[in-house]
Amino acid sequence: MSYKAPLADMRFVLNELAGLSEVAALPGYEEVNPELVDAILDEAAKLAENVLAPLNRVGDQHGNKLADGVVTTAPGFREAYGQFVENGWVGLHAPAEFGGQGMPNLVATAVEEMWKSANMAFSLCPLLTLGAIAAIEHHASDELKATYLPKMAEGSWTGTMNLTEPQAGSDLAQVRSKAVPAEDGTYKISGQKIFITYGEHDMAENIVHLVLARLPDAPAGVKGISLFVVPKFLVNADGSLGARNDVKCVLIEHKMGIHGSPTCVMSYGDNGGATGWLVGEANRGLNYMFTMMNAARLGVGVEGMALGEAAYQKAVSYARDRVQSRELGSDNPAPAAIIRHADIRRMLMTMRALTEAERALTYYACAALDKAVRHPDAREKQKWNAVVGFLTPIVKGWNTENASRIASLGVQVHGGMGFIEETGAAQYLRDARISTIYEGTTGIQAMDLVGRKTAAEKGLSAQALLGEVEAVVAQLESAGLGDIAASLRKALAHARTCTAYVVEHFDARPKEVAAGSVPFLELLGLTLGGWQLAKSALIAKRQLADGEGDAAFLQAKLITTRFFALSLLPQTASLAEVILHGADSVLALPDEAF
Amino acid sequence: MSYKAPLADMRFVLNELAGLSEVAALPGYEEVNPELVDAILDEAAKLAENVLAPLNRVGDQHGNKLADGVVTTAPGFREAYGQFVENGWVGLHAPAEFGGQGMPNLVATAVEEMWKSANMAFSLCPLLTLGAIAAIEHHASDELKATYLPKMAEGSWTGTMNLTEPQAGSDLAQVRSKAVPAEDGTYKISGQKIFITYGEHDMAENIVHLVLARLPDAPAGVKGISLFVVPKFLVNADGSLGARNDVKCVLIEHKMGIHGSPTCVMSYGDNGGATGWLVGEANRGLNYMFTMMNAARLGVGVEGMALGEAAYQKAVSYARDRVQSRELGSDNPAPAAIIRHADIRRMLMTMRALTEAERALTYYACAALDKAVRHPDAREKQKWNAVVGFLTPIVKGWNTENASRIASLGVQVHGGMGFIEETGAAQYLRDARISTIYEGTTGIQAMDLVGRKTAAEKGLSAQALLGEVEAVVAQLESAGLGDIAASLRKALAHARTCTAYVVEHFDARPKEVAAGSVPFLELLGLTLGGWQLAKSALIAKRQLADGEGDAAFLQAKLITTRFFALSLLPQTASLAEVILHGADSVLALPDEAF
Repeated sequence: MSYKAPLADMRFVLNELAGLSEVAALPGYEEVNPELVDAILDEAAKLAENVLAPLNRVGDQHGNKLADGVVTTAPGFREAYGQFVENGWVGLHAPAEFGGQGMPNLVATAVEEMWKSANMAFSLCPLLTLGAIAAIEHHASDELKATYLPKMAEGSWTGTMNLTEPQAGSDLAQVRSKAVPAEDGTYKISGQKIFITYGEHDMAENIVHLVLARLPDAPAGVKGISLFVVPKFLVNADGSLGARNDVKCVLIEHKMGIHGSPTCVMSYGDNGGATGWLVGEANRGLNYMFTMMNAARLGVGVEGMALGEAAYQKAVSYARDRVQSRELGSDNPAPAAIIRHADIRRMLMTMRALTEAERALTYYACAALDKAVRHPDAREKQKWNAVVGFLTPIVKGWNTENASRIASLGVQVHGGMGFIEETGAAQYLRDARISTIYEGTTGIQAMDLVGRKTAAEKGLSAQALLGEVEAVVAQLESAGLGDIAASLRKALAHARTCTAYVVEHFDARPKEVAAGSVPFLELLGLTLGGWQLAKSALIAKRQLADGEGDAAFLQAKLITTRFFALSLLPQTASLAEVILHGADSVLALPDEAF
Repeated sequence: MSYKAPLADMRFVLNELAGLSEVAALPGYEEVNPELVDAILDEAAKLAENVLAPLNRVGDQHGNKLADGVVTTAPGFREAYGQFVENGWVGLHAPAEFGGQGMPNLVATAVEEMWKSANMAFSLCPLLTLGAIAAIEHHASDELKATYLPKMAEGSWTGTMNLTEPQAGSDLAQVRSKAVPAEDGTYKISGQKIFITYGEHDMAENIVHLVLARLPDAPAGVKGISLFVVPKFLVNADGSLGARNDVKCVLIEHKMGIHGSPTCVMSYGDNGGATGWLVGEANRGLNYMFTMMNAARLGVGVEGMALGEAAYQKAVSYARDRVQSRELGSDNPAPAAIIRHADIRRMLMTMRALTEAERALTYYACAALDKAVRHPDAREKQKWNAVVGFLTPIVKGWNTENASRIASLGVQVHGGMGFIEETGAAQYLRDARISTIYEGTTGIQAMDLVGRKTAAEKGLSAQALLGEVEAVVAQLESAGLGDIAASLRKALAHARTCTAYVVEHFDARPKEVAAGSVPFLELLGLTLGGWQLAKSALIAKRQLADGEGDAAFLQAKLITTRFFALSLLPQTASLAEVILHGADSVLALPDEAF
């Protein structure tokens, strides 16, 4: 089997760390209970392991073919998507009133982790659909909701997000696509959009494009962008599909990875204008996009973590089987499985510890999002909203930067075979490489973190979370986990010093703070990932003492946490040094000297 | 232009740091002088920029085609190789007695850097030929030398190295290929070899394979491996080409990168045995390979550095042109070139500083190799032999690990465009990914460093070099470069502490030392790279004060060095912590718990 869902760790994190029971107690989640979640996870694992994972390399090898405006997905993708829809997976997290199952974000995240580990390229199609559902659900008219949401929640229609244009990547102020009002209340949309994931494909009956464009009288910049629904096929009054709209895929990009996912250049309005419907109010398109941004960025964070898990599993499997050279310090002269070699073990432990820390932190953030959305107490709601806002750039940035590192270590564990595509290790590295870029580069996440999420609120969210880290340090000391405590305490001190630095200097010297913003994001990722693992270690220690749980699993959690503390957390010292003292050396070289 | 040879930095390093004049004073290099070297570099730059670089993406896209045992290289490769041979570049470093130009390794390295930056896949063909030339020159009979070396030094015949078999990657004790003596003094070779770079191609008249195989009575393990010359076409007594030998390419690997370079599975003896000639004595094949290993590993280190340079140039070019978002803290509301953004600058400075540090350290090591081979004073010869032996795993391991990091930063600077293959940034990342694996993985380099090169000689080589670092720290303080001095002094202390740790514990606890061996290699790479850059800064400061040299270049060198000291050298603190205290956490998890 190429991928095995890590159900034991998922359940440990869901139940012991992220607080599934608290989430299930939120209004609207009354039907969520541990047995139901267990059953969902088991079913998802089967689909991920048996259907999606075997197609991962197929998608990579075959990619997508464009001919006469029709995109043919890789062999098996269409059938797998049919099964995915039939089993109701698209609507797992979609609202029940439109036919979804209304599961909490936390539960949906665990399920989505499996799709992403098994087949990242495939998983992007339902991911984009969920984003489009959220945009329509929160901002569109009841009529648009009624027309589109049931089919989308079912999965028979998929969704896309059309933001980027050649001149407008991270900088949406430069969007130029046009929307001209027609007499019937619709709009004629024209322009070219790039990097449109599943912009065209053969897996669904219709594709619902959400498109950013400018009205004729719109102000310049980001305050003049509106959001439109532009379906591939127009929808008749009775819900049946009508004429083909004036939108087509003109090119599929040749990418480094995620070959199974068609990344399209979409052309709107080559024949007079594509018919679109305004979502919400004019000129508020970017605001609407921002309301979905946290969820989308968390989703990419999940993706980074999921790729780490998949790369780790493949590397472990190879390291157990591959026999090369005798074990150092062993009496046995015969060649050993390479998992016995110290440097292979260092790489595997790094991959494992980062992935487990990411899962713990990510699920925690996803549970926070559920509480931010559903908590009945306004103050709690506000508190969790701040938590998820603060954690989102960290989960997105840190998980995805780690994904590239972990996948690269995975290649290295395979030696020469890792460079050969048949092995599959290289695909994880190629696939992971997009995750630090889309939904906002790591640099953009880091600016969000130091600016809006830290400096603008005087470091309150950071201090609140770091206060919780301190409490855990004290518990570690009491529990006899002294070396983990000592390491986490050092990381905490660095995180606090650097948070204070960011708060103090951002207004007066924003560029210098920005120069250290990615190191700051990494520092917080390590510290907070370490915090969640440390909580795991405390739970593991207690459960072992009480004779609860799977002893081997709990022992491994303690060992993995200790590795994280002693072999990864020390990086925080260097990061702090660079943040506090490196900035002017980053900025000093004149442009022309590069 | 896609690549511009960094001649100013190359000349600065050659002349001011690596000591070209000392190398030119060695016996046998009497004709080497600065004017000649300048002319060679200028000519090489033209070929690299105008002929090889434009073929880099062509090779990546087209790869190599195998049909009926014939390998067709990418369009233009054959013609480019013809020009390469015609201009005499293959034999630049080959011995004059066989038609080479007998240039020092130092000069050849600067030239090879350009081939590798411009087109790594192409550069592997002459690189392998040089390795084969060295093996034959040092160990084969005069008859074999006379038969093969003139054609190889000319480049009309190329060379290969056949070590790896499916079951024998890093562990050559497991080699199974056979060599059976024939009555005429030749041998019948049979077996399968994998990962054979340019094992078959259409660029040369003949291919001279150097093959490791076992004689019938050979002892088991590495002491039973012999080295054979096995030409593709047998060579007649008059030097003309005779019959096709019983060796063929049966597969070209589908690799993550270096698509332009055919990586072949070679089958020997499918029809009774390929005719081979023993090189030197029986059962000494591995020793002969080891004598070339330092040079080959340094060569891969050059490759890592060269890829960093190429990725840096492409990223700078994009960052100057791409306009996105206003500059932070600027009064100008218009979108700025992204080179103005702090995090882009952090990435570009990291790429630049690592590459310049690597160039300085690598050329220094290559000059040491020249002195180790040619110095007339036996004690000097021994000293430089120890220096190059110590630096080789560092240059190989550190430069190549950095190459992946730098190329990944290069993709990130490009944002979404970096993930699109047409841009070319992704190719550097894919190409670089092999460099930490072949000629010994980073883990193998690190074991060589802690074992043979540090512990076995009680740290003498390390201490000698670190003593030189200390002298430079003192000079930095005197020269008013206090913050560079302070940072380098800290790195030096970490390097010394960890060297003492390795020496003290390697014999009793080799596996624990091995667990920190890659961090130790990284720590020494940073410290010694910092040392060479610090020397550069001292020279730059003096030249600026004296009104010598190009002021802009020298100012940039000072700024780059300061960045290295303040933003990269702090990593040494974390590395030391992990080396000294992390080992048991690396090793603790039971195999079955992974």
